[in-house]
Amino acid sequence: MSLPGRVEIVEVGLRDGLQSEPEFVPTETKAAILNELIAAGVRQIEATSFVSPRAVPQLSDAVALLEQVNKRAGVVLSALAPNRRGVERALTSRADEVVVFLSATESHNQKNLNRPVEQSLRDIEDVAALLQGHAIGRKGAIAVAFGCPFEGDVDIAVLKTIVAQFARLDFDSVTLGDTTGMATPRLVRRTVDALRADFPGMKFSLHFHNTRGLGLVNVVEGLHAGVTCFESSLGGLGGCPFAPGATGNVCTEDLVNLLHEMGIDTGIDLPALIQAARHFERVMKRSLPGQVMKAGPRLALHDYAGAVAAVG
Amino acid sequence: MSLPGRVEIVEVGLRDGLQSEPEFVPTETKAAILNELIAAGVRQIEATSFVSPRAVPQLSDAVALLEQVNKRAGVVLSALAPNRRGVERALTSRADEVVVFLSATESHNQKNLNRPVEQSLRDIEDVAALLQGHAIGRKGAIAVAFGCPFEGDVDIAVLKTIVAQFARLDFDSVTLGDTTGMATPRLVRRTVDALRADFPGMKFSLHFHNTRGLGLVNVVEGLHAGVTCFESSLGGLGGCPFAPGATGNVCTEDLVNLLHEMGIDTGIDLPALIQAARHFERVMKRSLPGQVMKAGPRLALHDYAGAVAAVG
Repeated sequence: MSLPGRVEIVEVGLRDGLQSEPEFVPTETKAAILNELIAAGVRQIEATSFVSPRAVPQLSDAVALLEQVNKRAGVVLSALAPNRRGVERALTSRADEVVVFLSATESHNQKNLNRPVEQSLRDIEDVAALLQGHAIGRKGAIAVAFGCPFEGDVDIAVLKTIVAQFARLDFDSVTLGDTTGMATPRLVRRTVDALRADFPGMKFSLHFHNTRGLGLVNVVEGLHAGVTCFESSLGGLGGCPFAPGATGNVCTEDLVNLLHEMGIDTGIDLPALIQAARHFERVMKRSLPGQVMKAGPRLALHDYAGAVAAVG
Repeated sequence: MSLPGRVEIVEVGLRDGLQSEPEFVPTETKAAILNELIAAGVRQIEATSFVSPRAVPQLSDAVALLEQVNKRAGVVLSALAPNRRGVERALTSRADEVVVFLSATESHNQKNLNRPVEQSLRDIEDVAALLQGHAIGRKGAIAVAFGCPFEGDVDIAVLKTIVAQFARLDFDSVTLGDTTGMATPRLVRRTVDALRADFPGMKFSLHFHNTRGLGLVNVVEGLHAGVTCFESSLGGLGGCPFAPGATGNVCTEDLVNLLHEMGIDTGIDLPALIQAARHFERVMKRSLPGQVMKAGPRLALHDYAGAVAAVG
């Protein structure tokens, strides 16, 4: 299959990247990063989550943060909502889209949402009814879609059941989350092919983690399978609670650099994005996994004088 | 093109990985790592370099190191040699193969070998004559084959000139080195296609750096282009002198994990390789870029009790 000419990037660094960070990042700092992303041309941003402020204090400023963003035409600010209360809060906020999610396996759903998958599937009906008549978008998301850290492989039939429920409830977009970096190229191809065959009207997005170094490899396989929307995190911020020291989400600027080098448009200004990533590093007060912000684009050449050559 | 069933890995961590490390790693420690690699099934190892001991003190123990390795049938220990003197030393050592190299651009060759490319091409004739009649293998290598940090893009015609010289002098194998991580999938495909078309009898190996996060993406493109030999570094040790904080070589255990997940055999025992990488981390006294040694293979499952779930 030929590659797409254009790909959508959904930036999730302020949500998935930040959610495990113990030190609270001030709301105005988060808003400044969001505004830099928007100025760089990012048009879809999962900005926060309407989870319990007690469970995730880092994201307790969801409503206030969305109010501080300089919205521009075409920008979609989405927010995760794990339950009815989260959706109710999202409806009072400036969020353009609410992301409703569950896990593909019982153990991960229990750990994450404290209920069986069957119950979560019913909860989505309740949430869909609540969203009815409101001018807010809805998107589905499936965690551990490519493997569960507790249960291992996930049956594609389970994914189909979940996607069918989203489809029945007027969700036209579903994200497949590789929550702990268990996707492989073969699995990506098999999963995307199977789901696209059964749900030709559904838009699938891919959310990879780089936990085993395969994030961008899986993106390329997703492109070849016909996917044109990918989620990633500025600077590659994020982690894996099961693998100390392992990286988290695919890095946005590394992904944009790859896509541009493949001749695929993203609408994003890479140098401006790199500046935002460097700002994010300063905010986080540590080196983030992103590579392109350290090395620069490939044709950012170096001064010959004084340089030390690498042999190999 | 269909993927190969088997791929050769050339481990370069003890040479390319170590060469810029200021603190000398004792010879017996290097030998212990080499022996672990061999026990894990690695069959090709670029173990050291016969460069000037003054220029690279870290590799000054080349002869002694090769004597401490527990050779097994089928294991090929190679060593880099930048000039005639290096080749003469290699001939007195237990090296099975000597790697003769030059850079694809004038400025990088000047920085690396202190002479014009034209002179290096003539030097190879001298070296080939010296190797004649000796029971030692020969391999060519081209640095900055996918882009030069000083000059930018490299004309494929230049690569063809260099490969033609290697071919004329009975080299049947040439490595294309992506010395500072400037390769992209399109460039890999274009370069490999062009060289394989002109030199159907030559075996090409690919040596990628992960400087911009594209190392494994480029490997997959190389596989699709028909390449079956890749160089990588245990733990991903290595760096880029132009990009502080950037990663260096593609990580061997991450590469092996990817290949196995793609259904491609390497002959390497991944768990044993991961153990060697962890040993290498302890030797280097810092975290190395390799991901799989931190996260484990994808089906190394986690205990449900006590685990904290990741939302996305």
